[in-house]
Amino acid sequence: MTSKIGIQARVQGSLDEVIEKTTAALKTEDFGVLTRIDMHNTFKEKLGVNFRKYVILGACNPPSAHRSISANAEVGLLLPCNVTVQEDGDAISVTAVNPELMLGVLQGDPVVAAVAADVKAKLERVIARLSA
Amino acid sequence: MTSKIGIQARVQGSLDEVIEKTTAALKTEDFGVLTRIDMHNTFKEKLGVNFRKYVILGACNPPSAHRSISANAEVGLLLPCNVTVQEDGDAISVTAVNPELMLGVLQGDPVVAAVAADVKAKLERVIARLSA
Repeated sequence: MTSKIGIQARVQGSLDEVIEKTTAALKTEDFGVLTRIDMHNTFKEKLGVNFRKYVILGACNPPSAHRSISANAEVGLLLPCNVTVQEDGDAISVTAVNPELMLGVLQGDPVVAAVAADVKAKLERVIARLSA
Repeated sequence: MTSKIGIQARVQGSLDEVIEKTTAALKTEDFGVLTRIDMHNTFKEKLGVNFRKYVILGACNPPSAHRSISANAEVGLLLPCNVTVQEDGDAISVTAVNPELMLGVLQGDPVVAAVAADVKAKLERVIARLSA
């Protein structure tokens, strides 16, 4: 599994352990986890189908969110930054969305572009920490 | 306030009333609201700053999510579909992100593109219902 639109690490451990590590790594860059969706549970409950464990964490760095949303009221359509944690063979893949790609849909906003570059650097450090 | 990346309606009522109406309208197209972030509360708690009422709802149509995520493991980086509900002068603006724009970052995946077009049509009907 490789990522075309995100920054990825393969991590050993149980899903819960990896989620805990990911949350801790995000915290070092001042991201809080505001939301969590266990897609496999949603699919089981709503559709009755089995799916590999697949969790979507919604991570938010409040100063970055405030700066970008103050510059552009539409930024909330693209927040929080998703970090997926999913079963991937004999390990767990953790993938943070590339915020430059996400926020890039709001073309031509220099403040948003600057925040996106900064948040991308933060998320790269988070993922590097998980890879270490 | 106009939207460059979403589908928007201005709705009269209190924030809570409009969130309730929006949730009901989403339900008619089989979207559940899986997450809710009150950004104004996050900004107050984390940064001590006041911000207009600005809520991000995470809406998910389970069959569409399952179809797209089964086709492409990266789709979770772009889910759920955000619907923002925010103070906008003397009314409340409700904006659903354009899923074709969001999922468009995964270029060249025909299943994802088909789901995005279908979900866009559903969200257009949701927003039309709020405008009525």
